[in-house]
Amino acid sequence: MNTSFHIPVSVEWNNDHIKILNQQVLPQTEEYMELRTLHDVHEAIQSLKVRGAPAIGIAGAYGLAMAAAHYETEDITEFIALLEKDTGYLSSSRPTAVNLNWALTRLNRAAQKSKSVNEAKTELLHEAIRIHTEDEEMCRQIGEYSLTLLHAEEPVMTICNAGSIATAKYGTALAPFHLAMERGKQFTVYACETRPLLQGSRLTVWELEKSGVDVTLISDSMAAYTIQEKGIKAIIVGADRIALNGDTANKIGTFGLALLAKAFQIPFYVAAPTSTFDFSIDSGSDIPIEERNPEELKSIQGIFTSTESAKVFNPAFDVTPSNLITAIITEKGIVYPDYRKSILKLKPEA
Amino acid sequence: MNTSFHIPVSVEWNNDHIKILNQQVLPQTEEYMELRTLHDVHEAIQSLKVRGAPAIGIAGAYGLAMAAAHYETEDITEFIALLEKDTGYLSSSRPTAVNLNWALTRLNRAAQKSKSVNEAKTELLHEAIRIHTEDEEMCRQIGEYSLTLLHAEEPVMTICNAGSIATAKYGTALAPFHLAMERGKQFTVYACETRPLLQGSRLTVWELEKSGVDVTLISDSMAAYTIQEKGIKAIIVGADRIALNGDTANKIGTFGLALLAKAFQIPFYVAAPTSTFDFSIDSGSDIPIEERNPEELKSIQGIFTSTESAKVFNPAFDVTPSNLITAIITEKGIVYPDYRKSILKLKPEA
Repeated sequence: MNTSFHIPVSVEWNNDHIKILNQQVLPQTEEYMELRTLHDVHEAIQSLKVRGAPAIGIAGAYGLAMAAAHYETEDITEFIALLEKDTGYLSSSRPTAVNLNWALTRLNRAAQKSKSVNEAKTELLHEAIRIHTEDEEMCRQIGEYSLTLLHAEEPVMTICNAGSIATAKYGTALAPFHLAMERGKQFTVYACETRPLLQGSRLTVWELEKSGVDVTLISDSMAAYTIQEKGIKAIIVGADRIALNGDTANKIGTFGLALLAKAFQIPFYVAAPTSTFDFSIDSGSDIPIEERNPEELKSIQGIFTSTESAKVFNPAFDVTPSNLITAIITEKGIVYPDYRKSILKLKPEA
Repeated sequence: MNTSFHIPVSVEWNNDHIKILNQQVLPQTEEYMELRTLHDVHEAIQSLKVRGAPAIGIAGAYGLAMAAAHYETEDITEFIALLEKDTGYLSSSRPTAVNLNWALTRLNRAAQKSKSVNEAKTELLHEAIRIHTEDEEMCRQIGEYSLTLLHAEEPVMTICNAGSIATAKYGTALAPFHLAMERGKQFTVYACETRPLLQGSRLTVWELEKSGVDVTLISDSMAAYTIQEKGIKAIIVGADRIALNGDTANKIGTFGLALLAKAFQIPFYVAAPTSTFDFSIDSGSDIPIEERNPEELKSIQGIFTSTESAKVFNPAFDVTPSNLITAIITEKGIVYPDYRKSILKLKPEA
């Protein structure tokens, strides 16, 4: 492996501050920023400089631990009160981010178990580091399992950015490619640009190039012809939410790719941590699909590509029915149909 | 029908000059230009202000007739020589445009049959007008036949711009929608934006809005979800070239839509004049696929959307195998499988 390549990461803890990759200015500029205050962290999350549910959770955890390290009280009750106040402030930076609240709750619990302010400060940082390393380990496991299904010699297609920079490291759908590079094996990956927000062209191409993976950009409209012409042997994608029956909500365009995989008789894999399963949802029809701002489709970076009056349908996600999914790759192993049975086994209580 | 709506046309003959719609500045600006010299016409074609094979042929034909009207010789041999010189100049504006050469050849033949310069000048203009009206009639016929397959009550999907502004009027795939509007029936059309060059968002949305058709813009990645969610009942597209067995080359993305049509069990129609059939080509595998400039995918209107170093696969067309095509709609009628037999019947000699 060429040592000038490295797997990019989006959040790092540097002794007394957080270093983040500013994903808002990618791919034009590779800019790293230091976050030294709670306000810095709030702003970075709110303005999407940090994106990807796991990465947001990690940045938030370090942010809260960093802020708490500067509390001047020696009184643990007062300390906990300050922590709760800052937790509220930080979670308001991205109210719908489940991972952020989950991470901040873990930190609060860790502090509440502490007997002294000093112990609490140490525990907070340790818990943040644990959240960080657990996520990296989870992604690495997903990568390992994926590598039992994918082979570097066979070209693969993906969509969106289920990547290293959305997690602690490695990502989910992109984990096998990074992991293989670490072992000197280079995958050939075709990345769909992922309209409207172009996460494929802006983020996945940049990330895989950094890592040394042989990545080629195509438009979403080129998927069918590319599968045929370039001999794509598998499609692998991430997931936003997976229902009990295996139906999977993911970036708009995923459903179309799954139908193409079926038409070309190649496997279609979903790579996602078990935290993505929503055991309260029976099937995909229960998953609400967010419709986003029409401007995303009518203009690109402020320039109109259609009429200003254009009527637009702009769903952010689609649901891939489980019968189109060959397997779901989690950190706990590979889940195959019958999904109703195999997914239930992953339920924490089970 | 609301009288403020009209079917936009891209080329008009106005007594002594050509009026064109400048398609380069659509959809931001609706600009019409007067072309009064051969140089004007050359420039308009070269700079893509006029686009679409039939529209280019029509503009070229009027351009040549207009130039010839100003020749000062009374000698028919000298007149023909001047005409040939200008024909060479005009055809150099878009060397690969088959329709342009075809139209200019028709004009030259018309002039060669004339006995006087005056007669030749009249014949040239008449031939240009004939080319224009024949194309409009052809498109209208395609529209009529399409309306026996499509119904205004059922939502339809299309890609690219096989539209009025690419032809004399009506277009091919868009002809049924315009024709229905003339009769007060409003289709519901979903237009794929058609990356990378966005002919769907830039041109089709503008054109159908002008005509009063209920058009909604989606990204190419939204096609599968839209078919399912909006109950699309048919897909209709244009064609660049059709082989003897019915395999059809058209804008990249068409093949994927045809596979989706099959998956959803809805009809997939190709609308094209019989001049689109290439009787010298046995099947789609004999159709060369042009790869275009990588910049088209790496940037949008000059702004980078990926890394500058990104490797790109940018095929301009794909080939839809004939087994995915429900019917081909021509000006001479609707062609059904077995295509090898039905297409041969359209061969001019047959």
